[in-house]
Amino acid sequence: MSLVERMTIAGVGLIGGSLALDARRAGLVREIVGLGRSRANLEVALSRGVIDRIATDDADAAAADLVVLAAPVEACVDLAARLGRLAGSRTVMTDVASVKGSVVARVEAAWSGAARFVGGHPIAGSEEAGAAAARRDLFRGRLCVLTPTARTDGDAAELVHALWTSVGMRVETMAPATHDELLARVSHVPHLVAFALMRALDGRKYDGRRVLDYAATGLLDTTRIAASPAEVWRDIALSNAAALRAGLDEFRRALDDLEKSVAAGDGRALVALIEAAATARRRLDGKT
Amino acid sequence: MSLVERMTIAGVGLIGGSLALDARRAGLVREIVGLGRSRANLEVALSRGVIDRIATDDADAAAADLVVLAAPVEACVDLAARLGRLAGSRTVMTDVASVKGSVVARVEAAWSGAARFVGGHPIAGSEEAGAAAARRDLFRGRLCVLTPTARTDGDAAELVHALWTSVGMRVETMAPATHDELLARVSHVPHLVAFALMRALDGRKYDGRRVLDYAATGLLDTTRIAASPAEVWRDIALSNAAALRAGLDEFRRALDDLEKSVAAGDGRALVALIEAAATARRRLDGKT
Repeated sequence: MSLVERMTIAGVGLIGGSLALDARRAGLVREIVGLGRSRANLEVALSRGVIDRIATDDADAAAADLVVLAAPVEACVDLAARLGRLAGSRTVMTDVASVKGSVVARVEAAWSGAARFVGGHPIAGSEEAGAAAARRDLFRGRLCVLTPTARTDGDAAELVHALWTSVGMRVETMAPATHDELLARVSHVPHLVAFALMRALDGRKYDGRRVLDYAATGLLDTTRIAASPAEVWRDIALSNAAALRAGLDEFRRALDDLEKSVAAGDGRALVALIEAAATARRRLDGKT
Repeated sequence: MSLVERMTIAGVGLIGGSLALDARRAGLVREIVGLGRSRANLEVALSRGVIDRIATDDADAAAADLVVLAAPVEACVDLAARLGRLAGSRTVMTDVASVKGSVVARVEAAWSGAARFVGGHPIAGSEEAGAAAARRDLFRGRLCVLTPTARTDGDAAELVHALWTSVGMRVETMAPATHDELLARVSHVPHLVAFALMRALDGRKYDGRRVLDYAATGLLDTTRIAASPAEVWRDIALSNAAALRAGLDEFRRALDDLEKSVAAGDGRALVALIEAAATARRRLDGKT
């Protein structure tokens, strides 16, 4: 028998859909039910075998052993309240949102069964979206952060832990605020930077030539994540505003240091700053 | 008979070495001579068949039909003066530096034969360096910008044009200043941004956790070019400082606009800004 008789995925996109594919293959889940705003997307999920059936309504979606909220931040909070009201006393709920502090706090305030809510963030994905983008092994070898609190039920935390390890993730537990400070730096700031790079270049011309016609691999790499869905990133930025803005300040100071050495024509200072950045970056690839 | 009897590559790294490999294969060049500061690197180039022999001295290197300066900006300017003095009256010289205005102006001031100098920039490469990184087809399908001036000899410009088309590049001619404005935006600003992202994150911790241990694909893509060689980028930044700083201002304004909407909690404005960036980025991939 599977560990989970029925799992509902609320939001069958890249993350929710890929989780469904791998959790089924791992034998963790018997039946997978999909809930979502877009009927067309759910039909894609159904026809691709990502989900077994589409939930008939919220009550049907809530009647599950495990509900995974795989939607943008604000939708996760709304769904937790909506489905929580209808859920049984044994339903475990988790989410995949990229911000944990405000999500966990609001779900704990809104759902009487919140002891069975376990905040989670599988750090995987891409700029793609929708059930059509769901794929196997999206999570393998990557990190999932779980953020149980003092209120969280131990069995619920264990089930969610088992869910993510079953799809090949390393699981690490930390405080929601710690997650948000870390992710602001490694993900939310780089996204805003990529959006800003594209905004600054879009439509710009010199001597009749469109700047973006001269984009090479460097710019393409640097701005790949700028193609991400706008609503998802609106929610992340607004719900993690304090840590994001602190991270932007740190980034701006680092950029100012570089520009000051350019303005001063100080080649030695510039080499030292670039070399430190390059060494740190090569270390990320395991090349130093 | 080959179009070029002898070509000297001054700086047999990723660009110079890859050019040697492809130009030979294209049958454009009979003999390829390598010049460089690092004997070890030249030995690698020789053993890999990238060059036919190592130049015995500057005079030997200058005794070529075509001299390609494939070194960082400042080294290109120095080499043009050094080799120019020794070159014959038919030697054509070109460079591959990422900045054209100051390079072209200084070479034209320093070399009496500068009518046969054709500024060039094959827009290809990666964060790798050295003769060991040289590879076939690095240039295929990519753009090479040439920046001949009113002084440039037409036959010299034609030869350099033939060189880059022989390795599969599209060639476009423009004014040096136009090249520098365009490249500041699509390349030099993104590099400084990537350096700043790494500088801001390197060594930072929260709750005992190193921020960079949580880097996922988004950050890795965004900062890939931060692993680039420091001296190369010092020279580019310093020799294209005005356009680079103008581009940084444009970028900062775009980032400020995003942050203002975050600070104001203005989700509508934020979605509009992100969506415009995302649409422009998807267009670069031909996805919209």
